[in-house]
Amino acid sequence: MILTVTLNAALDITYRVPRLQPHSTNRVTEVAERPGGKGLNVARVLTALGHRAVATGFAGGGTGDALRSLLAQETSVTDALVPVGGATRRTVAVVDESTGDTTQLNEPGPVVTPAEWDAFMSTYRELLPDARAVALCGSLPPGVPVDVYARLTRAARTAGVPVLLDTSGEPLRRGLAARPDLAKPNADELAALTGSTEPLRAARDARRRGAHTVAASLGADGMLVVTADGAWQAAPPRRIAGNPTGAGDSAVAGLLSGLVEDLPWPARLARAVALSAATVRAPAAGEFDRGTYEELLGRVTVTEHPVAA
Amino acid sequence: MILTVTLNAALDITYRVPRLQPHSTNRVTEVAERPGGKGLNVARVLTALGHRAVATGFAGGGTGDALRSLLAQETSVTDALVPVGGATRRTVAVVDESTGDTTQLNEPGPVVTPAEWDAFMSTYRELLPDARAVALCGSLPPGVPVDVYARLTRAARTAGVPVLLDTSGEPLRRGLAARPDLAKPNADELAALTGSTEPLRAARDARRRGAHTVAASLGADGMLVVTADGAWQAAPPRRIAGNPTGAGDSAVAGLLSGLVEDLPWPARLARAVALSAATVRAPAAGEFDRGTYEELLGRVTVTEHPVAA
Repeated sequence: MILTVTLNAALDITYRVPRLQPHSTNRVTEVAERPGGKGLNVARVLTALGHRAVATGFAGGGTGDALRSLLAQETSVTDALVPVGGATRRTVAVVDESTGDTTQLNEPGPVVTPAEWDAFMSTYRELLPDARAVALCGSLPPGVPVDVYARLTRAARTAGVPVLLDTSGEPLRRGLAARPDLAKPNADELAALTGSTEPLRAARDARRRGAHTVAASLGADGMLVVTADGAWQAAPPRRIAGNPTGAGDSAVAGLLSGLVEDLPWPARLARAVALSAATVRAPAAGEFDRGTYEELLGRVTVTEHPVAA
Repeated sequence: MILTVTLNAALDITYRVPRLQPHSTNRVTEVAERPGGKGLNVARVLTALGHRAVATGFAGGGTGDALRSLLAQETSVTDALVPVGGATRRTVAVVDESTGDTTQLNEPGPVVTPAEWDAFMSTYRELLPDARAVALCGSLPPGVPVDVYARLTRAARTAGVPVLLDTSGEPLRRGLAARPDLAKPNADELAALTGSTEPLRAARDARRRGAHTVAASLGADGMLVVTADGAWQAAPPRRIAGNPTGAGDSAVAGLLSGLVEDLPWPARLARAVALSAATVRAPAAGEFDRGTYEELLGRVTVTEHPVAA
């Protein structure tokens, strides 16, 4: 199985309003709820690709119950979330139907106590021996140590399990120092980390900070990977219009599945880019349009960067 | 006891954001939850005034569980809510800390099935014999017949229980035809009902449509009441700054408590206006600032309209 970690899982709520009127009262015409958080999205896409995925992290309160119940009903992801006393955060996406724009409101998440953190570490260590890879995804809830991804990376490496790290800011910076096998920042996260807005230069810098390999998602431009053996860039055959939410999580699922299937880098990149574009065509994060995926997969252009990494 | 009916109860969620940015991602810095819905606010204020209050209506799903648990923890209101399969709606108030403005998002509420509606009617009929008065409050969830307040008014009148009706639009129009003892529209609701923006004229018109007495809340200007015996207007001694949410519900609690205590109309009005103003000074609906209430109570000006109603 592939293990995904979502320390700040969320109950994702989507509201549709005819036209959002700030500083006024808005009647919501449609409400949808789904299990949210980057690692849960990754796990969901992995199961759709035929892999067994186990999701851990924290869940608590009525919102945590709702999340777990939706996860069981709607996905074949194995739930290994650890209970906490605080309530799982909500995220509220308000879609303005007159413009298609979304206003996002993200709760901070429950404070995790030291005892809950210990319980999580035990669960994580118990799951590792069965994992063929682990993905560490997303932001941290209050109360979790900022070097958490470094700790989780070291534990996985000790167990001989490859680690993919997908986070930002200080948790990314600290996590890189523990030498994860693969880091997947987007262009903005990479620029914030390295100070460089030139992706190839920034990805090389991120490798020097500790990641064995850096895969940078470049939005509609595809993905760039810098490894010890070379650098490749993959781009979709055309620009895909739609909702980019979750595209990065699908790219992570593509990279992880390619890793455990031992695909060569160009094939992993092609899968990540095709999945990412197919997610833009799906209504929600954690889903992808299979027709688009299959159509694009053979048509992603992968080019090797001539300069040695 | 006094019975309050809230057919579309809500879990009220308040988000504080440093500055609301529409069409962008906003980090919520503070989350608060409370039991919401007009009848629940009225019941809460009644208990603070020393009355026993029973709240009925519908509650369901994880949000309904959260509402009931908060109601039990935070209030001494007796919970007689009827379970439904759908989830109790949420309302989300997003407070922009840079301006103090609030953007409100109101979910529509669960669809109530005919069987659930029957179960509610049985509960309501069982509660009526013990009620000294009943308040019918707020909007209707999907699936509830639009003439519901007329039916509930007739059932209460058959049981000899006085009825206060606080709603708007078509449910108000239909409810009035069943001749409730008292209707409490605000000035906008009264204008929408009658086509007149002149409160005294509009309140008289509303009486002709069926209400024995009409008490119109006029915001910072206080309250106007038109009865079979005369008309009075009450105004606070000064303009009170603050958050007007729930001020109308507190006015309803003032009128209802005055009714069961058999106070003369000027005293009922003074209580309703002082409570309403004291609610503007409290942080949330269903609460009032007791110091402000006690200070204002003796200082509300009540004048009789010279023209016969």
